[in-house]
Amino acid sequence: MSSSLTSWVDINQQSDFSIYNIPFGVITSQGKTRVASRIGDYVIDLSSLFETTLLDGLGFDQSDFDSHKLNNLMLKGKQATRRLRNRLQELFQQENNELKGSENWVSKVLIPVDAVSMEMPVEIGDYTDFYSSIEHATNVGTMFRDPDNALLPNWKYIPVGYHGRSSSIILSGQEIHRPKGQQKPKDDEAPIFGPCKLLDFELELGFITYEGKPLGESISTAEANDYIFGMVLFNDWSARDIQKWEYVPLGPFLAKNFASSMSAWVVTLDALEDFRVAGPQQDPAVFPYLEFSGNQNIDIQLEVQIQPEGKEPSTVSQSNYKHMYWNQSQQLAHHTVNGCDIHAGDLYASGTISGPTRDSYGSMLELSWKGTNPIQLNDGSERKFIQDHDTVIMKGYCEKNGIRVGFGEVSTKVLPTK
Amino acid sequence: MSSSLTSWVDINQQSDFSIYNIPFGVITSQGKTRVASRIGDYVIDLSSLFETTLLDGLGFDQSDFDSHKLNNLMLKGKQATRRLRNRLQELFQQENNELKGSENWVSKVLIPVDAVSMEMPVEIGDYTDFYSSIEHATNVGTMFRDPDNALLPNWKYIPVGYHGRSSSIILSGQEIHRPKGQQKPKDDEAPIFGPCKLLDFELELGFITYEGKPLGESISTAEANDYIFGMVLFNDWSARDIQKWEYVPLGPFLAKNFASSMSAWVVTLDALEDFRVAGPQQDPAVFPYLEFSGNQNIDIQLEVQIQPEGKEPSTVSQSNYKHMYWNQSQQLAHHTVNGCDIHAGDLYASGTISGPTRDSYGSMLELSWKGTNPIQLNDGSERKFIQDHDTVIMKGYCEKNGIRVGFGEVSTKVLPTK
Repeated sequence: MSSSLTSWVDINQQSDFSIYNIPFGVITSQGKTRVASRIGDYVIDLSSLFETTLLDGLGFDQSDFDSHKLNNLMLKGKQATRRLRNRLQELFQQENNELKGSENWVSKVLIPVDAVSMEMPVEIGDYTDFYSSIEHATNVGTMFRDPDNALLPNWKYIPVGYHGRSSSIILSGQEIHRPKGQQKPKDDEAPIFGPCKLLDFELELGFITYEGKPLGESISTAEANDYIFGMVLFNDWSARDIQKWEYVPLGPFLAKNFASSMSAWVVTLDALEDFRVAGPQQDPAVFPYLEFSGNQNIDIQLEVQIQPEGKEPSTVSQSNYKHMYWNQSQQLAHHTVNGCDIHAGDLYASGTISGPTRDSYGSMLELSWKGTNPIQLNDGSERKFIQDHDTVIMKGYCEKNGIRVGFGEVSTKVLPTK
Repeated sequence: MSSSLTSWVDINQQSDFSIYNIPFGVITSQGKTRVASRIGDYVIDLSSLFETTLLDGLGFDQSDFDSHKLNNLMLKGKQATRRLRNRLQELFQQENNELKGSENWVSKVLIPVDAVSMEMPVEIGDYTDFYSSIEHATNVGTMFRDPDNALLPNWKYIPVGYHGRSSSIILSGQEIHRPKGQQKPKDDEAPIFGPCKLLDFELELGFITYEGKPLGESISTAEANDYIFGMVLFNDWSARDIQKWEYVPLGPFLAKNFASSMSAWVVTLDALEDFRVAGPQQDPAVFPYLEFSGNQNIDIQLEVQIQPEGKEPSTVSQSNYKHMYWNQSQQLAHHTVNGCDIHAGDLYASGTISGPTRDSYGSMLELSWKGTNPIQLNDGSERKFIQDHDTVIMKGYCEKNGIRVGFGEVSTKVLPTK
């Protein structure tokens, strides 16, 4: 990585969308929905850019960019999307005149980000949620089971995961309603029905895959990165009181499937490669199919804010993706070791990303320790869990040697029960 | 229901595909894939039938029938698919001459079922598996927990369900490989990795939905049937040893997602209405959002056979869908009470359908009582669980007053681990 790349587009030093990023998303502008990238405060309209012929010879068609989703792009595979991103990086470099040289083209291709609306970028096929932060699993086990035996016996052998609901994954900016459901607040009394009282966020990242292998085949840890297109911020909304009553023995269901929120720009794995770091030591040794080589964790700084209505946001957590015990290559190798097939547009979320200190926990459940220790916000109010009209904002970025690659944010406002 | 309908097509008395059925599926014949129905031993090529103009005015286009999936059809909604099925029933009645009168048309529209290949009829969006048989839940609780407290505390309040994997749902006839995975056969020893040793079927039915309401809205029990298109037989393959080690606390994952098999013809809910029966008494009383009126169970006779390679099939279970404690209307009302959105092509499976007697249990786990009581097959061999090269066949049909409406079968052969 050199910090020598500069662009002829004016980019703020603190922008998540430096020339090192070049993410993919879907925009609507002037009534037309199409595939885009982003640089600084501009979206790059890839449909218009393709019309200039500057993207010729990369293996794409106009229809790939006139699409309402990124799935067609992903179906072209890693080599093709890498060529595309490399070409975009080239076109926007300071010294490149191919696009810059035509004012007419530039005005068609670069649109101020405030002038477009962002769309859900992916038609999500299957969605899996892992549980891969040892700090999160330990906190939950300490609160609800035995502090001296917080991790369940399988946790250090299996990158535990479960299937989630794809249909209710929504884009940053879409509001949600507090869900209703059954709860059993008192162990010795009958369950009740009503609005969730313990509404929580979960700070997560998700990766989105390319088309995998046929049913019956496995993807090894060594192959896994070839099947990962990119990543998004992910808020896995959770209704803790509904979850507690429903989840034994088959796992969380209505406690999760009322909504999960994701950020709009898919940051490619290529853009994140320079921020790889080693993960925590795994002890006991993992099974051979989970062994891996190289640095497979990623140093992504994460932040959660709560914004009460009409107030400034307060930062309630600062965590980092580098803490994950199980890495993405292990997650994908585990998911497919039984022959399960993966497809372009599947989403695989990390599970709550908690760090080692209280201010780095990735959920209100942990931050307020089951509500026993409320969080103080900047406006003086307290939070045990999320209240109606609160907006939860998650941000994430990598930074190294003055180079920044980020995700923007995922922001969701909670409205009262319908 | 009158038993007076007869058809000008010759239909065997024992056929699942009487004129009272008229299911929907997708076929390939002479290289062309399209939507079809079935009557007796013939498929009804709906693409060719639409070309005759005999389906005009029902609200469909040629493209709805030239499709590779039924999803476009389902997106037209219940009134439209009901009109279509009623029209097909009319065209094939003994006294109707509209199609019968043209030998040329008949030869194009009716194709012997042996001359076509069946295709996966639905692009499945989300897949949910319920756990709604009280006999099954009681058996499992008796085996693995406390015989005197077999049902978990939430079971009679909640139609327990969990999210499953859509990508690995396969069509009847496709072979599967025995999955590999982590297991922990001995409590006091470390886990091992290898081929599943306790491979099992689960006898289930699944319903497929129309497009539902937007995220945040609920579907009541009174509305539920309006959102159900039809049903299929469903074999929810399960790796019991993998399941036991992985499923706490987030539910089954690799134990299930290596494959689930479904039958090829979607039998409409309309065709099943005449076979409605009352379900079991629910005690304690359910929450108001789970109350319902009328008969919501369905009398569907079910059978499971195991066919060792080169041998005749042996029937190992005879069960009935009428035993279900929680009915489909309750399942859908529960699933959406928190605002979760459902879509055209979603699949909702029942969970294992066990009856009250040992010969009506819907899984080998129960039939062989954890392997302690092997099943005897007709060829003299024994089964505790499913062996390599076994084919598992499930059949289902309704019968009343001499009228039969059935599902055909879902048949899957197990090959050794890859």
